[in-house]
Amino acid sequence: MSDTTKYFLTEDRMPKAWYNLAADLPGPVAPPVHPGTGQPMGPEDLAPLFPMGVLEQEVSQERWIDIPEPVREVYRLWRPSPLIRARRLEKALGTPAKIFFKYEGVSPAGSHKPNTAVAQAFYNQQEGITKLSTETGAGQWGSSLAFAGDIFGLEVEVYMVRISYNQKPYRRALMETYGATCIPSPSPNTAAGRAILEKDPDSNGSLGIAISEAVEIAASRDDTKYALGSVLNHVCLHQTVIGEEAMLQMEMADSEPDIVIGCCGGGSNFAGLAFPYMREKLKGKAIRFIGVEPTSCPTLTKGPMAYDFGDTGKLTPLMKMYTLGSGFMPPGTHAGGLRYHGMAPMVSSALEYGLMEARSYQQTECFTAAVQFARNEGIVPAPESSHAIKAVMDEALRCKAEGKAETILFNLSGHGHFDMQAYTDYFAGKMTDVPFDDAALQASLADLPKVAV
Amino acid sequence: MSDTTKYFLTEDRMPKAWYNLAADLPGPVAPPVHPGTGQPMGPEDLAPLFPMGVLEQEVSQERWIDIPEPVREVYRLWRPSPLIRARRLEKALGTPAKIFFKYEGVSPAGSHKPNTAVAQAFYNQQEGITKLSTETGAGQWGSSLAFAGDIFGLEVEVYMVRISYNQKPYRRALMETYGATCIPSPSPNTAAGRAILEKDPDSNGSLGIAISEAVEIAASRDDTKYALGSVLNHVCLHQTVIGEEAMLQMEMADSEPDIVIGCCGGGSNFAGLAFPYMREKLKGKAIRFIGVEPTSCPTLTKGPMAYDFGDTGKLTPLMKMYTLGSGFMPPGTHAGGLRYHGMAPMVSSALEYGLMEARSYQQTECFTAAVQFARNEGIVPAPESSHAIKAVMDEALRCKAEGKAETILFNLSGHGHFDMQAYTDYFAGKMTDVPFDDAALQASLADLPKVAV
Repeated sequence: MSDTTKYFLTEDRMPKAWYNLAADLPGPVAPPVHPGTGQPMGPEDLAPLFPMGVLEQEVSQERWIDIPEPVREVYRLWRPSPLIRARRLEKALGTPAKIFFKYEGVSPAGSHKPNTAVAQAFYNQQEGITKLSTETGAGQWGSSLAFAGDIFGLEVEVYMVRISYNQKPYRRALMETYGATCIPSPSPNTAAGRAILEKDPDSNGSLGIAISEAVEIAASRDDTKYALGSVLNHVCLHQTVIGEEAMLQMEMADSEPDIVIGCCGGGSNFAGLAFPYMREKLKGKAIRFIGVEPTSCPTLTKGPMAYDFGDTGKLTPLMKMYTLGSGFMPPGTHAGGLRYHGMAPMVSSALEYGLMEARSYQQTECFTAAVQFARNEGIVPAPESSHAIKAVMDEALRCKAEGKAETILFNLSGHGHFDMQAYTDYFAGKMTDVPFDDAALQASLADLPKVAV
Repeated sequence: MSDTTKYFLTEDRMPKAWYNLAADLPGPVAPPVHPGTGQPMGPEDLAPLFPMGVLEQEVSQERWIDIPEPVREVYRLWRPSPLIRARRLEKALGTPAKIFFKYEGVSPAGSHKPNTAVAQAFYNQQEGITKLSTETGAGQWGSSLAFAGDIFGLEVEVYMVRISYNQKPYRRALMETYGATCIPSPSPNTAAGRAILEKDPDSNGSLGIAISEAVEIAASRDDTKYALGSVLNHVCLHQTVIGEEAMLQMEMADSEPDIVIGCCGGGSNFAGLAFPYMREKLKGKAIRFIGVEPTSCPTLTKGPMAYDFGDTGKLTPLMKMYTLGSGFMPPGTHAGGLRYHGMAPMVSSALEYGLMEARSYQQTECFTAAVQFARNEGIVPAPESSHAIKAVMDEALRCKAEGKAETILFNLSGHGHFDMQAYTDYFAGKMTDVPFDDAALQASLADLPKVAV
């Protein structure tokens, strides 16, 4: 079996618990605070938006949290996901490094997002909720929650940024296939939407507006809660099923990673693979962690650690995180899932505690890496995942230069079958790199909320 | 493990040989004949188009043909593919039947097509060929050959029906990602293309024209051969890796199929799953086989068994098969892969020998079945595969009515992520059923070549 390429766990070995890094970090993760009072907010303050099962996880210090059996049953539709050794890529690069990846593109929606969507839908259903509202940009999260809601009998209302709604009809069709209602935002359904439409009936919308609409819907109806696809502690928690599986599979491959790599938008796919291995690092194992982000939205590499709003509309509690400022508008790139001004507080803590490194790349070099990956391994990566691949290749080439046979493990968080327009632009020479706008960052940071905590 | 959902084979158990049903059929499969002379054609007659490694397989009577190790190495990028039990669908239907499916959508191109593309690229490379030409309609085959050619260092030139080239840019982008050249057909590259363009510079093209172009390119260049994605004996042979794997996985599930189901366009995905089980039927096991086709292109259910051309342009040798006549133009439907006037001679023989049944469905009822499948099992099926799913559901409901706990196995030949326009049309109520055109069939059959054999 020494030349095995894919490592599959049998379903009985699928992890029975999620891992909570908060139990092992050197210090606490700062709590969210109320933007008006500066007071820490607890689960009860967020109860109008989220079910208690999720809010308890949000603040939990327990190391292990059981995955409910109904969630595991749905996970079994695609989990455990494969661990794959990129042997052909290794050979093409001529590197002595071993490259492994965990492939999350096998899920129904094509990315890691259903890992938390299914859990969130379950806890809502348990508490008698019959409807979920959420926002989506490119549609990865919306289609994942649509799938999860369908499984647990919940109606799902997705507010989709209008320009994406018009430009990405296939993602919308996927949401509708799973029975969700997809509404172009801004919409007349909410006060937030109506206010925008009054000023500009042809508004293209923005993720900030869509969040405001989804939150308003949830806050105003007893039977409806809101669901978020990244950033929050419970989302990172649910994603750790990725890393826990990977550990068992790396054992099957008689390997241990020297480097763990993931792309970082809100932080959840990186957290999912990395956090279980950070537990081992905190016990003394020498493992490097690299979070990879776009140069055009360099939260971890250029932002300060500060309390900030989670959304553009300044409706959310303040979270302590690396941030470019909630007013920072990341330029349009093909990696829509990495265009977020902040970073998960738990990932931010990991960087602050020196557990990980961060680096950024331009999109064109990421697509060059993605195409080389596809030509060797067959899988066409999502634009977001291509950032991780670029870092993997750079590390593999460093290993070659240094003659080191290190083991690299990364998260291939999704496939690119819904993102082929990006590849079309790349081949047509129409893809441009977006320089980082420091003036915009400084202006945005000047507007950070003043919080004394 | 009694509640296991997915059955994975370790790579060391991946089949080492393809199975050739020709060795076990009650009689010979009729050879191709020359349209002018009516004489049987052998490998040497087809040598300008295909490599000898493939042509030997085309006429082989050997029961087992070894899968070359370099082909198995590439197969390992995604094979063995999973066998999945559709437990949630069973429950939703309330059927005592057990439903299993082999999922071929995990391949790089998203369907079963790479199973033969990789083998064909390998044999061509072995014989010093440096370039492959082929045609593609919707793009499934073109992207599979692009992937395979890339792996074995062959240039691939894909003649894509112009209307699809314009309407399906994402499939084209996938081909380009794998390094292939995609040319809208009719093109100025060939005499066949130029002749059409002279008459109609804005021609939308057709599969018949694209085949003519690809064949002309291969016939006129020493370094170039042609590759076909279905119909031929060697293509059916290569696909049997599906059924051989399925047998081992059904053993893991302690199950044996009572019914094996696949959709039929050219016949290769059906053959791939069914032929290994037909071997067991010929040894005495009671297994039913159902080939499923669109009502609008009912080759197996309405066509006669006759010698006919493989292409609209009447350039190919004559093959004995169920056919609607090479002049029959199947109406436009979303299942582009099932719009073929003929059927693989080996599948045709299986039907003639009474080894299988055939039935047809309208596309709307197939999409209704596909959506129900997606809402229960997560996977969004390709429009072609939805035909198999409709038959599976009908059989499962029959089992319910009769109180029979039969075991149904089908081939989910591909995912629908590149076909979401079809789902959009379905939800928008824009999908119409196409009545079968009997007058067109009679006209087409009147034009069948007269061959005395």
